[in-house]
Amino acid sequence: MDNMRYPSDKNLLPHINTPSELRTLPIERLPHLAQEVREYLIDCVSQSGGHLAAGLGAVELTIALHYTLNTPDDRVVWDVGHQCYAHKVLTGRREELKRIRQSDGPAGFPCRDESTFDAFGVGHSSTSISAALGMSLGAQATGSGRRSIAVIGDGGMTAGEAFEALNHAGGIEADLLVILNDNEMSISENVGALSNYLTRLLSAPLTGSLRRGARDVLRHVPPVHQLARRTEEHVKGMLAPGTLFEELGFNYFGPVDGHDLPGLIQVLQNLRDQPGPRLLHIVTRKGKGYAPAEKDPISYHGVGRFDPKHGLTKSASGSLSYTDVFSRWICRAAAEDSRVQAITPAMREGSGLNEFAEQFPARFFDVGIAEQHAITFAAGLACEGTKPVVAIYSTFLQRGYDQLIHDVALQRLPVIFAIDRAGIVGADGATHQGTYDISFLRCIPDMVIMAPSSAVECWRMLSTGLTHTGPSAIRYPRGKDNATKLPDDLEPIPVGKAVVKRSGESGTVVLAFGPLLAAAEAVADELDLTIVDMRFVKPLDTETIADIASCHHHIVTIEENVISGGAGSAVSEFLHREGVKNVSITHMGLPDRPIEHGERDELLATLGLDAQGLRQVVLREDNLD
Amino acid sequence: MDNMRYPSDKNLLPHINTPSELRTLPIERLPHLAQEVREYLIDCVSQSGGHLAAGLGAVELTIALHYTLNTPDDRVVWDVGHQCYAHKVLTGRREELKRIRQSDGPAGFPCRDESTFDAFGVGHSSTSISAALGMSLGAQATGSGRRSIAVIGDGGMTAGEAFEALNHAGGIEADLLVILNDNEMSISENVGALSNYLTRLLSAPLTGSLRRGARDVLRHVPPVHQLARRTEEHVKGMLAPGTLFEELGFNYFGPVDGHDLPGLIQVLQNLRDQPGPRLLHIVTRKGKGYAPAEKDPISYHGVGRFDPKHGLTKSASGSLSYTDVFSRWICRAAAEDSRVQAITPAMREGSGLNEFAEQFPARFFDVGIAEQHAITFAAGLACEGTKPVVAIYSTFLQRGYDQLIHDVALQRLPVIFAIDRAGIVGADGATHQGTYDISFLRCIPDMVIMAPSSAVECWRMLSTGLTHTGPSAIRYPRGKDNATKLPDDLEPIPVGKAVVKRSGESGTVVLAFGPLLAAAEAVADELDLTIVDMRFVKPLDTETIADIASCHHHIVTIEENVISGGAGSAVSEFLHREGVKNVSITHMGLPDRPIEHGERDELLATLGLDAQGLRQVVLREDNLD
Repeated sequence: MDNMRYPSDKNLLPHINTPSELRTLPIERLPHLAQEVREYLIDCVSQSGGHLAAGLGAVELTIALHYTLNTPDDRVVWDVGHQCYAHKVLTGRREELKRIRQSDGPAGFPCRDESTFDAFGVGHSSTSISAALGMSLGAQATGSGRRSIAVIGDGGMTAGEAFEALNHAGGIEADLLVILNDNEMSISENVGALSNYLTRLLSAPLTGSLRRGARDVLRHVPPVHQLARRTEEHVKGMLAPGTLFEELGFNYFGPVDGHDLPGLIQVLQNLRDQPGPRLLHIVTRKGKGYAPAEKDPISYHGVGRFDPKHGLTKSASGSLSYTDVFSRWICRAAAEDSRVQAITPAMREGSGLNEFAEQFPARFFDVGIAEQHAITFAAGLACEGTKPVVAIYSTFLQRGYDQLIHDVALQRLPVIFAIDRAGIVGADGATHQGTYDISFLRCIPDMVIMAPSSAVECWRMLSTGLTHTGPSAIRYPRGKDNATKLPDDLEPIPVGKAVVKRSGESGTVVLAFGPLLAAAEAVADELDLTIVDMRFVKPLDTETIADIASCHHHIVTIEENVISGGAGSAVSEFLHREGVKNVSITHMGLPDRPIEHGERDELLATLGLDAQGLRQVVLREDNLD
Repeated sequence: MDNMRYPSDKNLLPHINTPSELRTLPIERLPHLAQEVREYLIDCVSQSGGHLAAGLGAVELTIALHYTLNTPDDRVVWDVGHQCYAHKVLTGRREELKRIRQSDGPAGFPCRDESTFDAFGVGHSSTSISAALGMSLGAQATGSGRRSIAVIGDGGMTAGEAFEALNHAGGIEADLLVILNDNEMSISENVGALSNYLTRLLSAPLTGSLRRGARDVLRHVPPVHQLARRTEEHVKGMLAPGTLFEELGFNYFGPVDGHDLPGLIQVLQNLRDQPGPRLLHIVTRKGKGYAPAEKDPISYHGVGRFDPKHGLTKSASGSLSYTDVFSRWICRAAAEDSRVQAITPAMREGSGLNEFAEQFPARFFDVGIAEQHAITFAAGLACEGTKPVVAIYSTFLQRGYDQLIHDVALQRLPVIFAIDRAGIVGADGATHQGTYDISFLRCIPDMVIMAPSSAVECWRMLSTGLTHTGPSAIRYPRGKDNATKLPDDLEPIPVGKAVVKRSGESGTVVLAFGPLLAAAEAVADELDLTIVDMRFVKPLDTETIADIASCHHHIVTIEENVISGGAGSAVSEFLHREGVKNVSITHMGLPDRPIEHGERDELLATLGLDAQGLRQVVLREDNLD
């Protein structure tokens, strides 16, 4: 090892471009490197925006993993991927990190197309153990001898898929190292019995209770917590830490301090080549090393640009986001109707439920990262005559698809799905795009699917869900509306009725499903278009469409969903069913490929889903005529 | 209690039409009633076919629940519902049971539309704890004071959703009784660490280890298993039975003998009104009371008609089911290509993987009832260059939808989905219909979706998946094909190419997606149709469609999927995109409503999806011209 390559401690990071270079450093230099990485992360994210608190908590772990393992041959699967920024910095993407999540920069999550060090693409939580287990057995089958490691948070561990994977791995005694990165947080504080259990582990009298094997592995590693008083109810957890994981066939090690780099490295060196399923429980602090983020990790989970010296400042925005609309609506609805309840799978802040949770704690259910359970649970509530509202992002609804079909729709239970982030989500990129929900919901019987074109419409549609006797979904985008005033009441709108917003003479009609109505309105006068706010994807207002088709030669459908099976497709199905032949139809929507990260408006424009794109479609068709 | 109403022990069952009547019986009469119910179940199911082994195992539990609880006001949620036959017999549907799963008879699963005693509709596993928890909190919100009980098997407990629900219930200390009905089986033998754990519980030194509370509740109830030797590795489980559930916030009671009716009743009386989350672990035997079923519970899980005296006989069938085709193909493919692996979420028999599991045990993965994990696990395998084949029913693929999108499709990993039971499944009814998969898969980028029209085509398409470099799905029906000979090789077919089977002069063309091609062929000569076996839903053979559209005036698409967003919808999208106006199009497919149970062919005929229905469609259009 040529330590002389690194002239001063201050300048380590610029010399470390790959894990191979990292591995040439002596252990005692690593804490300083960690400090440099941390400062670099704060610097970059404050300029570009992105996920911050999780990444700061995982700096030492990232260094320790790349230092002790032979990456990329060994596979490190990061759960969710919020915490991967230090990993990107140390695997050849240091400069690129300055443009993270921008259209010309790297993804905010690990991505196989981006680097061979990104062993598995993530974004949604709780897939890491399953994927790493697959890699472990795949490596066994091909004889490659790679190691597989999953790094999962205590939040991610609450999801059923993580349990399924533990159950499988423990049952077959697979060679797999799971690192439980316990920071006692999802995006919000963790909930559920597992979280309580992990907290008990942290308060257990550690040194006295370790099994012999664990004691050997953890020798010289200081336990995180001091001896705690035995209490009757905790006695089992204290006698045998990690029992829950041990019962599932894992060897449990920990808890150890996830910010003690030499300690972590020693443990990993001891654990990396042991056979069988191993779980290493490390304890970290979300936001570690940046005081404002340590103090308020929820706000610093994902941030926009900010001045690191002063931290986040509240932006004084006049206009309302769709999330704000939902937030206000559910508080209002709950005040008026005692049956209203809200369910979130660990997305209290993102879904706008903070205020509701404070005002109506007994009617607020954060069920953890557990979309499947969230939906069946809501179905159970609905059976008893309450009015459950499942607040969920479009992309995460994919996790509860069977429950939506099997437990809600087939039983026609009046569960309201408030689907946020429907359409292009922007910086989170391909894994998070809410671009399939119209297609995967439209095929399900008895679903009412609404797509509001404005904040006011969103409010009215949520109210419509409340009066509807079956299941309903309101899908609204990430983004703002110019509205500043919302309705005073909870009046519903008629189910399945569109609104003709403008009658034009050009012979072209735009059927808009959702907020892209604005694109049509922007060119309406110029092109003398007829414009219909369709409002409902299902039931489709076939009466209005039939009327319109009889007096227009060109129908343009526009929606923020893939075209395949989307709302425009429903219009095509209807016109063909009716034998309407005298009209041409153009489907405007998202193409049949993943949409990467970037600014939402910019992406929509690139995809032709704006006024300019609509103008081109209309003029091209006019030229054809 | 007027015991004289029941003249002799032999004649109890005819007098018990409702749980209220059941509750008038003295406890000592109940074991005899159980015997009568059991005989009645064997009698009925042997005549009608249906699920047998699970129901026989749950007779005493069913009686004990209705005896001790105030059903239907109290909510009993049966997990999966295979075991509900005794429940149906005792809740007013004794006579109807003779026609169970037939189109004029009751559903094979609990169904809210059928009876107020069916608290929650089921069919898919592992929803019961979520639903019962929702009911418990719903009852609390509405002040109804109902009790909520979930009855779940040890198989159902392996699914992530069950864990999510335990985590939630344990975390908020909800009033909920979960009965773990442990028969050490799913449909096949159980797998995974949880199963090993439960087995250890059963071998633990029971009486000495029960907590005080449990000891009180279980007083006089004989433990199932005798003292077992302590072994080092089991020491924790033996010291504290149920630790795993205790760590998740549940009070654990058991294990107790689930066939000891007086004992069960006593435990339930003690447990029903205790506060907080309780888990009662009972041990039953699948097939209990019918020797052939006890001996071979896998074969007796679901049965056709049989003679109870002689038990099941092997039917000597000449033609091949699509499941048989898959079964033979995967053995052949694995013999030829060492990279081929098979993954099943607890459906070894149903998916036709018995032979493969025997021949290639190291390449066979039964992951338990864990669809989410199954798919991400397969993605992990594919990362290492193997060729994972996920064998899954269409309806259960809904459980892994996000994983298919997020882990497989977005990463374009070459995972093959062998989708069985696509289309109408028959007797299992609405919860099991595989009628949405074309719609929910078609909207996902980079998916290749194939629909074989015959056994030979199915074989070729599976081979095509094997050579394809990205994700692919082959969706095949429940049912048989006349083929007796399969290909000798693993030659693929060209991706995205349809086959024109017949050129007709009538001006009508049928574009068939899947086995309903046969309906078209049956009337092809009579109506002089052009017939195309489309083969691929995605990529669609647009070249062939464009050619066809230019020389036909009527296109009929036919598929065994809902019309909304289905394969026909893809054809409509394409024709509108191309501006084709001179052709009318009729979509034949499933309607936009749940399809109940009944014979597959009969249901297809009723829905007009047969030769007769096609003839009507063609002739009607001809009359319109």
